[in-house]
Amino acid sequence: MPLDERESADEFMTATYRALCTHGYADLTMQDIADESSRSKAALHYHYDSKRDLLLAFLDHLLATADERLAPPADADPRARVHAILDALLEPDSETEVPAFRTALLEITAQAPFDDGFRERLRTFDRRVTDRLAEAIADGVAGGAFRSDVDPEEAAVLLQTAVRGAQTRRVAVGDAAAPSRDLLDRFVADSLGADEGPR
Amino acid sequence: MPLDERESADEFMTATYRALCTHGYADLTMQDIADESSRSKAALHYHYDSKRDLLLAFLDHLLATADERLAPPADADPRARVHAILDALLEPDSETEVPAFRTALLEITAQAPFDDGFRERLRTFDRRVTDRLAEAIADGVAGGAFRSDVDPEEAAVLLQTAVRGAQTRRVAVGDAAAPSRDLLDRFVADSLGADEGPR
Repeated sequence: MPLDERESADEFMTATYRALCTHGYADLTMQDIADESSRSKAALHYHYDSKRDLLLAFLDHLLATADERLAPPADADPRARVHAILDALLEPDSETEVPAFRTALLEITAQAPFDDGFRERLRTFDRRVTDRLAEAIADGVAGGAFRSDVDPEEAAVLLQTAVRGAQTRRVAVGDAAAPSRDLLDRFVADSLGADEGPR
Repeated sequence: MPLDERESADEFMTATYRALCTHGYADLTMQDIADESSRSKAALHYHYDSKRDLLLAFLDHLLATADERLAPPADADPRARVHAILDALLEPDSETEVPAFRTALLEITAQAPFDDGFRERLRTFDRRVTDRLAEAIADGVAGGAFRSDVDPEEAAVLLQTAVRGAQTRRVAVGDAAAPSRDLLDRFVADSLGADEGPR
């Protein structure tokens, strides 16, 4: 797309992020999103037919951003790769960890059964995370960093499930009641047989 | 409360359950709930001031129902108690496992940060599950059924987090992509050191 089109798209993605943090998903309007940008609601409608179209584009944007964070160098230590992926999903420096945004994402998740477009994007993201984790775990098993009896695909599904549960509990009951990162790291160490110690 | 009051309350709880399955949470109206009962919307408003009041009563009702299922006999085998609690949270024979209801519960969960009443009830439920799991695990550690190095509270938080993640993924990406019960059972066995085999 031409440069000015790309700039518009980038600005609208940032505006959507801000508007979701401020208003949540359920009550979000196109006007709320335009208000977070330097553009008019008419300009927003020129690019996106509906709020749903815009949100699908926003999920695509999140997926592309996540892909960068989920792809640590393939030659890095497998244990570091697993932890880098968990960092990408859980750590406070991630944009997705602003509590208001985390809540908006859970609202969108709860809409997945009602919308094929949402569901397809969530499935793609879910599959991507499992694949990146399974690759790192398989490399660790092959190289002796992890226990030889670990099934990479199963371990990846369990790890991702624990992360998803931690994210949901942060929204449902707050950070204090959700499992700490330490506890999740120990779970990784226990389930993969990785050494404890500094990473 | 008098018998006819209790009958009304029971009927409205059943109607709320059915209406959530049919309409989801976001668009639910008092009329939808009245339509699932033999009573009028006026009768519903006589008992509950608002949709929020009714939903808070419904969450209390779910909590009371869950309490029965979460309390297996204290003299039962600790491993059987842990699995009974997971059954209560995950198994298809539970009312909460109708996919539409599961989705409505996730919608309500995503509202917790916006509503102290919802959040308080979700916290109570979360705490109850952790306590019941930790008690069963502690008994199993004391009696030698589980590994002696297991921390019951930490293991309970991790188990509950995995269950919560499995529930969220069922909504987000569907049953097929969510971890199977077998995989979760193996996770229990691995993390607690329980024997594999028939339960």
